[in-house]
Amino acid sequence: MDNNNDFAHLVSRRGNLEHPWSTVTPPPEGLISFTGGIPDPATLPLEELSVAAKKTFSNRGVDSLQYAGSAGDIRLRSLIAERITDIQEVQLSPENVVLTNGSSQALDIICAAFIDEGDVVLSETPTFTGSLWTMRSHGAQIFPINIEKDGFDTSSLENRLEDLKEEGVTAKFIYLTPDFQNPTGIRMDLNTRKKIVGLAKEYGTFIVEDTAYSELVLDGPSLPSLFSLGPDSVVQMSTFSKIIGPGLRLGWLTGAPPIVHSSTWSRTDMGSSVTTSNIVAQFIEDGFLDPHINKMKNVYRNKRDTFDRVLNEMLHGIVSWNTPEGGFFFWLTANDNIDVKLLLEEARNSGIAFAPGFRFNVESNTPSQGIRLAFSEVSTENIPEGISRLSKAIQKFT
Amino acid sequence: MDNNNDFAHLVSRRGNLEHPWSTVTPPPEGLISFTGGIPDPATLPLEELSVAAKKTFSNRGVDSLQYAGSAGDIRLRSLIAERITDIQEVQLSPENVVLTNGSSQALDIICAAFIDEGDVVLSETPTFTGSLWTMRSHGAQIFPINIEKDGFDTSSLENRLEDLKEEGVTAKFIYLTPDFQNPTGIRMDLNTRKKIVGLAKEYGTFIVEDTAYSELVLDGPSLPSLFSLGPDSVVQMSTFSKIIGPGLRLGWLTGAPPIVHSSTWSRTDMGSSVTTSNIVAQFIEDGFLDPHINKMKNVYRNKRDTFDRVLNEMLHGIVSWNTPEGGFFFWLTANDNIDVKLLLEEARNSGIAFAPGFRFNVESNTPSQGIRLAFSEVSTENIPEGISRLSKAIQKFT
Repeated sequence: MDNNNDFAHLVSRRGNLEHPWSTVTPPPEGLISFTGGIPDPATLPLEELSVAAKKTFSNRGVDSLQYAGSAGDIRLRSLIAERITDIQEVQLSPENVVLTNGSSQALDIICAAFIDEGDVVLSETPTFTGSLWTMRSHGAQIFPINIEKDGFDTSSLENRLEDLKEEGVTAKFIYLTPDFQNPTGIRMDLNTRKKIVGLAKEYGTFIVEDTAYSELVLDGPSLPSLFSLGPDSVVQMSTFSKIIGPGLRLGWLTGAPPIVHSSTWSRTDMGSSVTTSNIVAQFIEDGFLDPHINKMKNVYRNKRDTFDRVLNEMLHGIVSWNTPEGGFFFWLTANDNIDVKLLLEEARNSGIAFAPGFRFNVESNTPSQGIRLAFSEVSTENIPEGISRLSKAIQKFT
Repeated sequence: MDNNNDFAHLVSRRGNLEHPWSTVTPPPEGLISFTGGIPDPATLPLEELSVAAKKTFSNRGVDSLQYAGSAGDIRLRSLIAERITDIQEVQLSPENVVLTNGSSQALDIICAAFIDEGDVVLSETPTFTGSLWTMRSHGAQIFPINIEKDGFDTSSLENRLEDLKEEGVTAKFIYLTPDFQNPTGIRMDLNTRKKIVGLAKEYGTFIVEDTAYSELVLDGPSLPSLFSLGPDSVVQMSTFSKIIGPGLRLGWLTGAPPIVHSSTWSRTDMGSSVTTSNIVAQFIEDGFLDPHINKMKNVYRNKRDTFDRVLNEMLHGIVSWNTPEGGFFFWLTANDNIDVKLLLEEARNSGIAFAPGFRFNVESNTPSQGIRLAFSEVSTENIPEGISRLSKAIQKFT
């Protein structure tokens, strides 16, 4: 059997799928990257976390190192419940908050609890590649609902739900990112939110609301979460990745109790890190979180404004964009004469990296004129040089 | 659709399975518990971890809070590779070590990469309930191979593999815990190890070697790992839970490169906690790990000896057992007149908890005279009182 010792013949359907990041190569020296949805490195709250860690190991002691069950550390769950009750104006008990290894695991356990191979889910498109990967891994058949310039296409959603109903199919869920969507940066307006929640109820399905960027509002007020508009038919996947740091790998799932319950008891691990949960709980209890978020918002607002200004100076008329009111991303739409796949290579050779729009499509072969630029990680000083490089690469197509 | 708003009609096959811990109730006041495979609380290295955390946030800074990819933090992976190379006398590169959220996630991603619904896997029985749960969640059809008093039944394994071959079926893998097995505490002898590795090769399948307890050798030398005996056909799932603390939720997967590779790229999360990985890496680099393991071994050896002595005093002739040479568990076999299910209730009413053997069976309805007693967590002072309570509960059946 030596000829078979790579065990390729034993690999599952899922194991044979191509992982979106399995072929990513490390960036060359000197590259300016607008690719990752990664927080500004200079703002990461290292000192505050260090204080919280010290207190955790002294004050919480053994409790910070033992198992805490599938739902996770109750102290952090309580703090999250309080915080969400406050921010979103909903009623939420700690029993209905489950800690996860980032919001990616929140989606994973929802999929485990609700998706059998071939089941239908509906998803905004373009959307976060990682979420598409998770749903595909679980064998979901994903129907795309377009996000247009002015937001999510509700009539397309309604038509799809109606078509499915006629076929006797109920979509398992609708995956949506209402705030500062990845990759388009678009924020869904209140009427659209209400309409979608109504449609989910009408057609007997639920909504998975991805709130990864919801707290990072740079302009204007927060809008009501889908969960607040439909507490019985929405689950929320959330994360500390964007508001504290992604390396924690700590997120949570909350929302409609039966969905949270089924998802929790579908997980196969023994709960999320009690150690990081306690450190983050201490960080919150010590009052570090809100000032930190405010500090980051200022940093991101400045970067966003710099991006906007430089884009106007260098790319006006060649690409179009909406200025994001929050989150991490500019979404550029390139003129039709620009081949974004070729541009990606050209740009990399010119020392600038971005995430091409087609990577975010539900149907990965659909072409896209989209260009996602993350303004979160790059230093303010590098923004003009980065956009200048991008501009030069784009000029070659005009 | 209000009548459907628990969404029970949308739950998947997997979501409808009963989670082994979903019905666990908190212990009553005053209960002495021999149930959990949990480290001694008094030995948890809180001070050393506190030092490591402080250094991590100061010295590693931003790197401890950003993403580190699907395989995880390279520094910790290098330290693990060095350590395993040293201990197990194998050749192992960091590229072939993947950090996971405990060893439970290591098994989860192996299952994701190799199991389609209905696929056959072989497993030792009785075995760790959590591992059975993971394999079942992924839809595996699990064939049990008995562990007898003198260890794993290799001829039963061989017969099963031969039968499957005749049916044209290749088992996806064989799940085994060679060292201080959970729940039986049995250590597999060298000949059995060699025989099993040979059988896996002969029948074109691979072995998942669970080494959760392998470092906790209380008597005699370590035996060669299955991975060292068959580097091309074994993957190892391992964890810091038993040798540092379970609350970290940090483990790893290593072994035959193609299996590790497929498993890594089946995960749907964004890697394991970079924060805890850095803290643990610092703990290891500062030389804390080996002295800590030695300290724990002394603690556990004393507890094991106390258990053994008190069992001899109180239960000789009523139950039988082998004294474990390592790990966390005594495995008692009750005489046939004892109904272990009833005993479980009786014992709980008498203020003593244990894990009944039937919970560890692949076929969960198979009766078992087994009683698993964890000697790891209980304080030494509570051992005689705990065993005395158990003894009194048992006397009621004699």
